[in-house]
Amino acid sequence: MIRTIEWKEDGVYIIDQTALPDELRIIRCEDHERIAEAIERMEIRGAPAIGVAAAMGVALAAKNCNNEHELPERLARAYKRLRSTRPTARNLFWALERMRKVWEEPLREGGNALKEKVIKEALAIAEEDIAVCKAIGKNGSALISDGDGVLTHCNAGALACVEHGTALGVIRTAYQEGKKFFVYSCETRPLLQGARLTAFELKYERIPFKLITDNMAAYIMKKGLVNKVIVGADLITRQGDVVNKIGTYGLAVLAKHHSIPFYVAAPLSTIDLNASPDGVTIEERAPSEVTHIRGVRIAPEGTEVLNPAFDLTPRQLVSAIITEKEVAYPPYDLSFLFRQGNN
Amino acid sequence: MIRTIEWKEDGVYIIDQTALPDELRIIRCEDHERIAEAIERMEIRGAPAIGVAAAMGVALAAKNCNNEHELPERLARAYKRLRSTRPTARNLFWALERMRKVWEEPLREGGNALKEKVIKEALAIAEEDIAVCKAIGKNGSALISDGDGVLTHCNAGALACVEHGTALGVIRTAYQEGKKFFVYSCETRPLLQGARLTAFELKYERIPFKLITDNMAAYIMKKGLVNKVIVGADLITRQGDVVNKIGTYGLAVLAKHHSIPFYVAAPLSTIDLNASPDGVTIEERAPSEVTHIRGVRIAPEGTEVLNPAFDLTPRQLVSAIITEKEVAYPPYDLSFLFRQGNN
Repeated sequence: MIRTIEWKEDGVYIIDQTALPDELRIIRCEDHERIAEAIERMEIRGAPAIGVAAAMGVALAAKNCNNEHELPERLARAYKRLRSTRPTARNLFWALERMRKVWEEPLREGGNALKEKVIKEALAIAEEDIAVCKAIGKNGSALISDGDGVLTHCNAGALACVEHGTALGVIRTAYQEGKKFFVYSCETRPLLQGARLTAFELKYERIPFKLITDNMAAYIMKKGLVNKVIVGADLITRQGDVVNKIGTYGLAVLAKHHSIPFYVAAPLSTIDLNASPDGVTIEERAPSEVTHIRGVRIAPEGTEVLNPAFDLTPRQLVSAIITEKEVAYPPYDLSFLFRQGNN
Repeated sequence: MIRTIEWKEDGVYIIDQTALPDELRIIRCEDHERIAEAIERMEIRGAPAIGVAAAMGVALAAKNCNNEHELPERLARAYKRLRSTRPTARNLFWALERMRKVWEEPLREGGNALKEKVIKEALAIAEEDIAVCKAIGKNGSALISDGDGVLTHCNAGALACVEHGTALGVIRTAYQEGKKFFVYSCETRPLLQGARLTAFELKYERIPFKLITDNMAAYIMKKGLVNKVIVGADLITRQGDVVNKIGTYGLAVLAKHHSIPFYVAAPLSTIDLNASPDGVTIEERAPSEVTHIRGVRIAPEGTEVLNPAFDLTPRQLVSAIITEKEVAYPPYDLSFLFRQGNN
C-alpha cells in the first residue's frame, strides 16, 4: 500500500513525486516551510494530498512552537505561507480554512490544548481523506463494467491523496472487486504524471494498462478501445464545471464527440459552492517544464511557450461527478451534497 | 535557407533530424542502403522528403552500378528495399513508382543512358518538390489573414520536404508576404517534431510563435487564441480523408468543436486516388519512443504502450485541402486535380 504522506514523531514524511518512477525517495519535512516548498516544487501534488500536506504544515508550526503566547501568530503565519503555494487546487484552501477554525474558535483550554487540537485536526483530515477515497472508489466502481476500456489522465491516485486515490481509487476498487477491464493512461505532459505516477501505481497493483501519449487519446477512442473516461479534479463549481490538469478539457470534448461518458471523481472538499467558472485562477508554471523533460532540453534555446497547469471543463461535458457521498448527475446543483450534516 | 536533402558528386547529403535542435548535423549517404536506414531511423522524415530520399536512393544504386547488364536488377533491388522502409507515407510509393517507370519503359539508348536517366529523374523529383511547395505556400497564404492565430502540428516544413514545406510552407509564404499573425506549434509527442523541428524553423525565420504541449490545444482554442489549424499529410484519399501524424485527428475534432477551420496542405503526390480510409496501414513504432524521451526513461520499466505513428482524419472534419494546383473544398473528389495533364 502506498502512503503518500504520513505524520510521524520526528516530522511529516512524504514520497518525493518528482523522483518517481526512478526512485522511491522519502522526504522528511520538519517545518511548515519545507512543506510549502514541497508543494511548490510538486514533490507532493494532487489536490487532496496538497490539502492534507498544508494541514500538516500548520500542525508542524504548532508542534515547533514552544511559546503558547506566540502560537496563534505562528499558526497564522504558516497558514499564510501555505496558502500562497499554489493558486488553483480547492482542497488547499479548504484544508487551511478548516485548520484556521481550530485556532480561531474561542478557547476554553490553555495553549497546550490548542497545540494538540491543531495537530489532531490535521491527522483527522488525513484519516478522513483515506475513508473518503474508499467511498469514492465504491460509488464509482458501480460505473465500471467487465470489458470496459477506461481512459484516465494525469494522476488522481494514491499519490494524489493519502492513499487509494479518487479517479484511480475508482479503478483500484473496481479491480479489487474482481472486475475485468483495461486502463489507458495519458502520459500528461508537461510533468508526465500519467507516465511516471499513474503507470507506477497501476504496475504496483498489477492492473492491466497501456500508456499513451496525450495526442493518442482521440485515436484510441475512434478505434473503440475506450468506453469510459475518468479523471480527478482540482476544483469543481456548484454547477459542475471542473478544473483539472491541463488536457482534461480536450479529453472531455473528444469523449463527447465519440459518445463516451466522461466521469469526474473527487471529494466534497474539492467542490467550491461559491466559485464561478470565470473566476478560477489557472496557474501558469515555468516555461522550462515545457522546453525540458526530466532535465533534457527538447526545444531550441529561447523558445517561448505557454504553460497553463490546468484547464476548465464546462459542466455540459461532464457525465457524472463521483463523490464520497453519492454520484451526482446533470443538471448539477452540487449544494445538495452538503446538506444533512455532510460538509 | 534550409535544404533538407541534396544530391552532390560524392553522395546524398541529408540533415540528421534526430539531432535537431541540438546540432545541425549532416549525413552523407553513399548508397541506397544508407538512405533506407535514414528513412527507418527518421534521420529524414516528412512524406515529401521521404519520397525524394527514396528517389535519390534509387539514383545512388544507379550511380554505384558499373555493370550495365546488372543495372535493372540492382535498381529493382534498391526499389524493393526502399519500399519496405515505412508503410504509410504515400509520397514514398509515388516517388518509387515514378522511378520504376524510368527503367521499365523500353530503352532505346544503352545502359549508360539509363543510369543517367534514373539520376536525372531523381533530381527532377527534388526540384519539382521545391516548386510544388512554393505553389502550395502561395495558394494557402490566401487563407491566412492579419491577426490570425494559426495552430500547426508536427513538422510539415522545409525539413519535411526539400525546402519551404507544405503546412509550414503556407505559414512561411504568408509571413514573407508581410502578413501579421501568430503561430502555435504542438510539440508532437512521441518524437517531438513540433518542439524540435517546427520550433527550429520558425525561430530561423523569425516568425512569432509559441510552443505548447499537445494537450494544451483545446485550452488555447477555447481561449480564442487560435482561429485556424493547418497541418501536412502523409496520405490523402480521393474523398479527402487525411492520414497524418498521430494527434492530427484529435486536433480536427477539437477544431470542429470550436468552429475553427481545419486545413491540410499537401502536394498531389500525397493523394492516392485508389486508397480507402479502411485500407490504410498505420505504422506502429517502437515502444521506447513513448517510454523514453531523448534517451531518458519517463515511465516505469516494463510499461506497455501504444505507439501508432499516424491517425486518420475523416473528410467531414477537413475544411479545405491546399495543393500546388488549387485549394480543394468539400465535398471532395480530388480526381479533378489530376486532369488536364497535372499528374
